Amino acid sequence: MLFRRSTALARLSLVALLGATLFVSQAHTQGPASATWLDPYRETATSLIQASTSDDFAWERLAELTDTFGHRLSGSANLEQAIAWAVETMASDGLEHVRAEPVMVPRWVRGAEHAEFVSAPQQALTILGLGGSIGTPPEGIEGDVLMVNSFTELRARATDVAGKIVLFNAPFTTYRDSVTYRTDGARVASQFGAVAALVRSVGPTGLRTPHTGSLHYEPDAPPIPAAAVAAEDADRIARLQARGTQVRVRLTMGARAEPDVASANVVGEIRGRERPDEVVLLGGHLDSWDVGAGASDDAVGCIVTWEAARLMISLGIRPRRTVRIVLWTNEENGLRGATEYAARYGADAADHVLAIESDSGVFAPAKVGFSGGAAARSLVRDIGTLLTPLGLGQIGGGGGGADIAPIARAGRVPMLAYLGDPGRYFSIHHTSADTVDRIAPEEVSKAAAALAVIAYVAAEMPDRLPR
Amino acid sequence: MLFRRSTALARLSLVALLGATLFVSQAHTQGPASATWLDPYRETATSLIQASTSDDFAWERLAELTDTFGHRLSGSANLEQAIAWAVETMASDGLEHVRAEPVMVPRWVRGAEHAEFVSAPQQALTILGLGGSIGTPPEGIEGDVLMVNSFTELRARATDVAGKIVLFNAPFTTYRDSVTYRTDGARVASQFGAVAALVRSVGPTGLRTPHTGSLHYEPDAPPIPAAAVAAEDADRIARLQARGTQVRVRLTMGARAEPDVASANVVGEIRGRERPDEVVLLGGHLDSWDVGAGASDDAVGCIVTWEAARLMISLGIRPRRTVRIVLWTNEENGLRGATEYAARYGADAADHVLAIESDSGVFAPAKVGFSGGAAARSLVRDIGTLLTPLGLGQIGGGGGGADIAPIARAGRVPMLAYLGDPGRYFSIHHTSADTVDRIAPEEVSKAAAALAVIAYVAAEMPDRLPR
Repeated sequence: MLFRRSTALARLSLVALLGATLFVSQAHTQGPASATWLDPYRETATSLIQASTSDDFAWERLAELTDTFGHRLSGSANLEQAIAWAVETMASDGLEHVRAEPVMVPRWVRGAEHAEFVSAPQQALTILGLGGSIGTPPEGIEGDVLMVNSFTELRARATDVAGKIVLFNAPFTTYRDSVTYRTDGARVASQFGAVAALVRSVGPTGLRTPHTGSLHYEPDAPPIPAAAVAAEDADRIARLQARGTQVRVRLTMGARAEPDVASANVVGEIRGRERPDEVVLLGGHLDSWDVGAGASDDAVGCIVTWEAARLMISLGIRPRRTVRIVLWTNEENGLRGATEYAARYGADAADHVLAIESDSGVFAPAKVGFSGGAAARSLVRDIGTLLTPLGLGQIGGGGGGADIAPIARAGRVPMLAYLGDPGRYFSIHHTSADTVDRIAPEEVSKAAAALAVIAYVAAEMPDRLPR
Repeated sequence: MLFRRSTALARLSLVALLGATLFVSQAHTQGPASATWLDPYRETATSLIQASTSDDFAWERLAELTDTFGHRLSGSANLEQAIAWAVETMASDGLEHVRAEPVMVPRWVRGAEHAEFVSAPQQALTILGLGGSIGTPPEGIEGDVLMVNSFTELRARATDVAGKIVLFNAPFTTYRDSVTYRTDGARVASQFGAVAALVRSVGPTGLRTPHTGSLHYEPDAPPIPAAAVAAEDADRIARLQARGTQVRVRLTMGARAEPDVASANVVGEIRGRERPDEVVLLGGHLDSWDVGAGASDDAVGCIVTWEAARLMISLGIRPRRTVRIVLWTNEENGLRGATEYAARYGADAADHVLAIESDSGVFAPAKVGFSGGAAARSLVRDIGTLLTPLGLGQIGGGGGGADIAPIARAGRVPMLAYLGDPGRYFSIHHTSADTVDRIAPEEVSKAAAALAVIAYVAAEMPDRLPR
């Protein structure tokens, strides 16, 4: 299924001409579910869906990416090799102006890490250092564990914290509510004199599965080492303490920050045939954490957005506006790719008509979310009716994403996201179990088809989506 | 709920007298589902079930054992501390003749272990050395991976094996069918000149979860190092090879055997009031692998069999025959506890009227299995009707267990087993996820109640179970 560029370009020209003719003769009537304004796009939407769902091309590419390069932490050789592969492969697909736009990214190195009970039994805790954490001295940090279920409880025990290893054992509710202990736990514990922080993994109880992710230090307190512990380990410590056993732990982490290194956003386009300066932006992030294969977070987001463009090219579609694919670098621990893009394209921010992100996996049941003004929302909901054959429900709220947020903020750009089932996504999020084998090929094809249809209509409709 | 011994013993005497009186006046009529021969035992069975299911005592004790001592590999300090605790606690429960019967056990030490792709990307495989494996040289063993799905395929590729690391990638079907690659893979691969063996974990795909377990060398081939790999890693290598990528791996294992050390079976009894030499034997094994907490394999088997005796004592029951609890040592990697017991009690093997093992977890839906002659089976099925309030179905086949097998063989002893749901059990079997938090208190109470009722009737019925 290799795409031959010359044929594709010839088809592009033909379809561009045809498209232009079509749209002159069609009224742009906006309306609800059976919106007639969509009629010019129905046949192409059907073709995109058929093309995407007729084979496992997208999944195979996803597997090739994750199998070949593995996890892709910012600053790693794996990531840079994946970037080079993406540039080459994107160009061979027929995307235009394919380039690697330089971004300097942080390089955080995990090093060896270990935690164990100091008293008998000599036994390890299952931990995973948090991204960005400082390390410990080589001999580790030893301390009695002070377990709290919330920041409120920590503050109530403020006078007990000095010299302790604070364990935040907040039950996992939703990612949004629970992640604050991962991002802010170390900082807050340090304010009260803790020597290290452990955080119950942000995710449902797995199979002794720790979840990493970034933390955030502030100058208001000295940085202290921090690691996630598996839910089972947190539960065990809670039971031991309930029985009156003081738990003492030694934590050893070799984590360290090294100087920034060069990385890049991978950018490729289908240049718009009439309004090339107006851009429908789509992307996922190519970097990942250094465990698992970063398959759902977020190789699949890269693949399904890129695939949206490849499908258009394979069907000879060149829409009115430019479709731009960006495979972001450094989403996980710096957001430098998104920041750099917003800086580079800040002057053109308002020319972005829609920004699309896929960074929540594609696990069924999936949905599409939108954030923007009421007029745009109404139109996007209309477009969503074209996705009925894919079994996706009505487009609701929840558009947005970390990588598109900076440019969207700058240009007041409506945002749209493909949202996989959060239960399945967060069970493997930032873990060694984020691998391709658990992603179904048909879910990848479905996501690619949905994004292709949405991007196509947004790039083709005569008037740009209102802000 | 601490049990005070003096009161208990007083009650034992009273009930013994009462029991003796009762049984003189009752005919022993054997029959099907509504068997009248069971009538004398119905009230006590109901009391045992009520006592067991009215609180979480058994689960709390299970949690205390696994939380306090952690995993308990033969030869470890953890195991010996757990044995000392069990002796003390069993005696405080009122069990009689509580003793630690010495057993010399092997001491295998895992050491550090690591496997990684040699070519880019520099990335680790998720492995867990197999118990009993030899180690590698300190610098590891490097080799191209030869992946096969079966022994048949290995033999067909016999001339390709020399110098390779063989990966057995047999899909997991049932434990019984799949475990042969773990136990025999290294030996067979070595016969053809392999330098090391990797085995797809024996269990369903988890969350990048490797399963350890014992392997078996024979003098017919030099021992080679062997490790389990997570299913996801095996799948990844299979995909890479399908794309034509030769996978090369470096395996480093610090595993080694050390001299045997002293351990013990923990034994405690309720001495029979009329036929103390006839024994109903129940037990689970106290040792475990050195990952997880050995909660389902097999702390829970120890607790529920021990609890069967404790429940009888708490109700003042002293049956006609002796109820003997054995917490076996070294089931996992040597079976020395079972062997030593059979040697020590070989002359009394025929006095064992029933041997009960719990070593398959207690996950619902559970069942009870029996292996023995037709006459005994008929009686045991009758007894099973007393378990109706627990929601257990009819007692079927599948009695037996590694620890009771030697004495049962010696004495032609009928065997019975409590069998937890195999799907849930084998998903965590020999993994770091074998922890107490995933075992429901009510499942532990249910198992203890079922075993208490069965052991009580088998120890009380006038005629011993036929062979």
